[in-house]
Amino acid sequence: MPSYKAPARDARFVINEVLNIAQYGALPGFEAVTPDLVETVLDEAGRFAAEVWAPLNLPGDREGCTRHADGSVTAPAGFKEAYRQFVESGWGTLALPAEFGGQGLPHVLGFAVDEFLSSANQSLAMYPGLTGGAVSALLAKGSPEQQATYLPKLISGEWSGTMNLTEPQCGTDLGLIRTRAVPQADGSYAITGTKIFISAGDHDLSDNIIHLVLAKTPDAPDSTKGISLFVVPKFLLNADGTPGARNGVSCGSIEHKMGIHGNATCVMNYDAATGYMVGEENKGLAAMFIMMNAARLGVGIQGLAQAEVAYQNAVTYAAERRQGRALTGPAEPGEKADPLFVHPDVRRMLMDAKAFTESMRAFALWCGLLVDLAEIAPDETERQQADDLLGLLIPVIKGYGTDRGYDIATAMQQIWGGHGYVAENGMEQFVRDARIAMIYEGANGVQAMDLVGRKLPAHMGRAVQTFFALVDRECAEVKGDARLADMAGKVEKTNGELKAATMWLLQHGMGNPNNAGAGAHHYMHIMGIVALGLMWVRMAKTAAAALDAGTGDSAYYEAKLTTARYFAERYTPDAGALRRKLETGADTVMALPLEAFATA
Amino acid sequence: MPSYKAPARDARFVINEVLNIAQYGALPGFEAVTPDLVETVLDEAGRFAAEVWAPLNLPGDREGCTRHADGSVTAPAGFKEAYRQFVESGWGTLALPAEFGGQGLPHVLGFAVDEFLSSANQSLAMYPGLTGGAVSALLAKGSPEQQATYLPKLISGEWSGTMNLTEPQCGTDLGLIRTRAVPQADGSYAITGTKIFISAGDHDLSDNIIHLVLAKTPDAPDSTKGISLFVVPKFLLNADGTPGARNGVSCGSIEHKMGIHGNATCVMNYDAATGYMVGEENKGLAAMFIMMNAARLGVGIQGLAQAEVAYQNAVTYAAERRQGRALTGPAEPGEKADPLFVHPDVRRMLMDAKAFTESMRAFALWCGLLVDLAEIAPDETERQQADDLLGLLIPVIKGYGTDRGYDIATAMQQIWGGHGYVAENGMEQFVRDARIAMIYEGANGVQAMDLVGRKLPAHMGRAVQTFFALVDRECAEVKGDARLADMAGKVEKTNGELKAATMWLLQHGMGNPNNAGAGAHHYMHIMGIVALGLMWVRMAKTAAAALDAGTGDSAYYEAKLTTARYFAERYTPDAGALRRKLETGADTVMALPLEAFATA
Repeated sequence: MPSYKAPARDARFVINEVLNIAQYGALPGFEAVTPDLVETVLDEAGRFAAEVWAPLNLPGDREGCTRHADGSVTAPAGFKEAYRQFVESGWGTLALPAEFGGQGLPHVLGFAVDEFLSSANQSLAMYPGLTGGAVSALLAKGSPEQQATYLPKLISGEWSGTMNLTEPQCGTDLGLIRTRAVPQADGSYAITGTKIFISAGDHDLSDNIIHLVLAKTPDAPDSTKGISLFVVPKFLLNADGTPGARNGVSCGSIEHKMGIHGNATCVMNYDAATGYMVGEENKGLAAMFIMMNAARLGVGIQGLAQAEVAYQNAVTYAAERRQGRALTGPAEPGEKADPLFVHPDVRRMLMDAKAFTESMRAFALWCGLLVDLAEIAPDETERQQADDLLGLLIPVIKGYGTDRGYDIATAMQQIWGGHGYVAENGMEQFVRDARIAMIYEGANGVQAMDLVGRKLPAHMGRAVQTFFALVDRECAEVKGDARLADMAGKVEKTNGELKAATMWLLQHGMGNPNNAGAGAHHYMHIMGIVALGLMWVRMAKTAAAALDAGTGDSAYYEAKLTTARYFAERYTPDAGALRRKLETGADTVMALPLEAFATA
Repeated sequence: MPSYKAPARDARFVINEVLNIAQYGALPGFEAVTPDLVETVLDEAGRFAAEVWAPLNLPGDREGCTRHADGSVTAPAGFKEAYRQFVESGWGTLALPAEFGGQGLPHVLGFAVDEFLSSANQSLAMYPGLTGGAVSALLAKGSPEQQATYLPKLISGEWSGTMNLTEPQCGTDLGLIRTRAVPQADGSYAITGTKIFISAGDHDLSDNIIHLVLAKTPDAPDSTKGISLFVVPKFLLNADGTPGARNGVSCGSIEHKMGIHGNATCVMNYDAATGYMVGEENKGLAAMFIMMNAARLGVGIQGLAQAEVAYQNAVTYAAERRQGRALTGPAEPGEKADPLFVHPDVRRMLMDAKAFTESMRAFALWCGLLVDLAEIAPDETERQQADDLLGLLIPVIKGYGTDRGYDIATAMQQIWGGHGYVAENGMEQFVRDARIAMIYEGANGVQAMDLVGRKLPAHMGRAVQTFFALVDRECAEVKGDARLADMAGKVEKTNGELKAATMWLLQHGMGNPNNAGAGAHHYMHIMGIVALGLMWVRMAKTAAAALDAGTGDSAYYEAKLTTARYFAERYTPDAGALRRKLETGADTVMALPLEAFATA
């Protein structure tokens, strides 16, 4: 049985020490956020995740969800009660607006808790996780009446939400949507169609399920310009707002899939279900992107979360399992063999994981702060800069974060050898669960195209220029410190690779957009390395200062410096290789006709 | 339902055109191997694999194996009949010695067929696959009587074999074996102990199962120097050689695991089972390595095989699934969307797969030829050189081949998007099945250490020097051809990276062996890139010559040239990055104590 302990100390380090959240005390929502409050929230949320949710992860994978003959779905045993405790303790409401019953705390705190919950039980975390997307869309585009009707119950967790985009013939290309919304005399719409891959589409955890559904009105243009967003409750509401009659929407089947067995992935059948338009007609795509951005950040955090829990269990195994001897001679001659931990290749994998998870956490939490600052920073320039950076980095945190999260989970499984392949030890579940994060909410190739095709050119490259300057400045700031100079220099060099790659795309992507497409995935990974490198510069700077100040816990800060060096040594070289690949362009990528790929 | 078609044309290209197998016609076993025979064997074996075995792959995964109350095990429905047809058609006996009923054909042919069978159904292929290890051990170390008793039945497939090494406390470190072998008055041994992770440990496909078991005699040294090898039949043999009474060995349970559900992975309990020593007492490790080397080549081929079948299904989906538009404007304006195939990032993944599978196939088949030449080349120097290269490359084909095979299978699943995560489409099974190949028969970190710690220094580096010279010579040979010069130059450069990395290990691994350990995995991957690069040089040379000769099928040969260029552009840059990582040494890898990895 795998174990989990929330990395509360590390999240606290990022929030209190690296981001120095106390400096934002004047901003709305940050007033009460003292270092002590941060510590309390992280400790308590971490304990809840580890003690209440984590024990259900392996059994939930084994049992899966059940669809009954009447179309109703039940989550694995224990999920309902664990969700109830989650609602009761308020962990879902941390960063949601106080106006609708949330706690109104900063997103950066909410993101930390999201990581813990996803590590503990990704399948369970996805039930309230999808609610988050629905809340974002209603907050941004819902009418005051819709907000008053749905938000308090969604935010409290009494009701949950879903996002209904995909159809059998329509994944990434939302212009292909066929679901129809026919206006009714009372101002509502009759929604008819089939949606697939609907996470948490039906279940027994909440009293009502509020589906946000993309559909087309009868005269809508036959493209992405003709999509509208609708809210479709599972149970229609009585006059007093309580759930009443069943609406015309039901789960047709649940998918058997590689992982996240504990989350019900549903085919949802809409049969003249009553829905209400959210926002303007034919502007559903914009509302969808609001849901999507929130969801993509959440999925990036899932990449981190599965890497983290896999890493913890690999550390435990490396410490306990004895096999072979250290290359430098027996480390524990009294035993018949040394622990795996002595082997450099095992240590390399553990260091890879440590270097990734700690900087990815810092990256995610920084993005959480950017969400806050984009909304409430007092200065317009600061808000815009935060928004620019966030837009640029969302595809990176999602695409790079989940690609690497899967790689790390796989490497941690590797440390367990054959025992990692056996289901009862749980390591293989982390890999299977991590796999979906590379796919949903926009496959990582789509993230790469979003980055290169939309985010880079927006506002004449303003966002990426801001990012370049930020990295250069922060690297330059620490180069006077002999402990940091070399690693900061290596990160600065990766920033140079990123600049060169950007320039290449600019020069070669205009004439032939396939040049941009053929390099997009590599570009996203270069930016991921630079982003994590920037995090290591920040963390190393903070750690060096803490050591200088003699604040105690010196082993912790020394480890940060060592891990920063490891990152510089073993992660940054890939940036140059990726740039060289990117700069070979699209010619050989696109040269062969379909027939050349056929097996003969 | 996924599909499979054996890449017979491509295997024929390698065997007949690249390796030019006809040139060895004077060697024993090669006499009858004309290009026509090669074509017939590949076509027929390919058809058998695709038509008889492949349809059972997905159902076998879903059903898994069943252990009954009496300890007996049945394979999934259809496996017994499919195995019977395999035995009847003789596909398992191709490269086995005619002396014991095999067909005595070259291993290079057997390897090609192994790929097809593993692609079609890895779980099923593992039943006769493990027999191969048992046959190798008995051929090398068995007494004439043991050979006469077991080999004909094992080779015909009426009986199957297993390898019993691992125990609960003992994986890589075979010195920790506890299974005991107590000599009996009749010259046999009573074997007692527990073996785990025994592939095909029990099942209903064959009339008897011949277990090869590592165990310790009572006075054996308590280390790897005290291990002996025993043959333990499931059914003891009657005087006439037919299976008789049940021996004291049985399956205690079968593992629930991530993949290869159709193969029974057993806990085997030996309770004073009757066994017979194979070879000399305390020399079991040497015999084990003979089994292992055969098995490791087979596992490397599994990496190729899963990548290949996943690739084929990704091509089909990319051609059929319509989503979005080509970046250069609609490719099929009459349709509502273009096929995925138009998207450069999809094409990049397909080209990655094509560049890998075709060169990995060439690599595997070349290793098959080296197995043959190491045994039967007329010239002692040639035999030694083949043996040197084979020893050097076995960890590479296993370690690099399965690491990359898994990556490719994962990328091919990615092309399917959400539909790749759903079990019924079969893509996720390829990933789960591919995952085990990185672990069993020596985890890939162990392969890397075998390469760096044993194979490199052997005979003062003779093998690697041979390899360096071979690559340089073959690159130089084609550089006069303008079509090949650039790609051969890039491969030559990766050979330079490999030489530099080798030199670094030599200079820094002596003083601190952890420097070798911390770079071993990177080193193995550099050599993998060089090895596949050498294959591309060979294949491009052959393709260019065929185009010059106007032999027809020019699209096929043009595609080889393009794919060779793609490999040079998108694979070789990693070699430099890997070398830079390797050259940072063990300092940061080994610096942190265990406590620094604990979650706080």
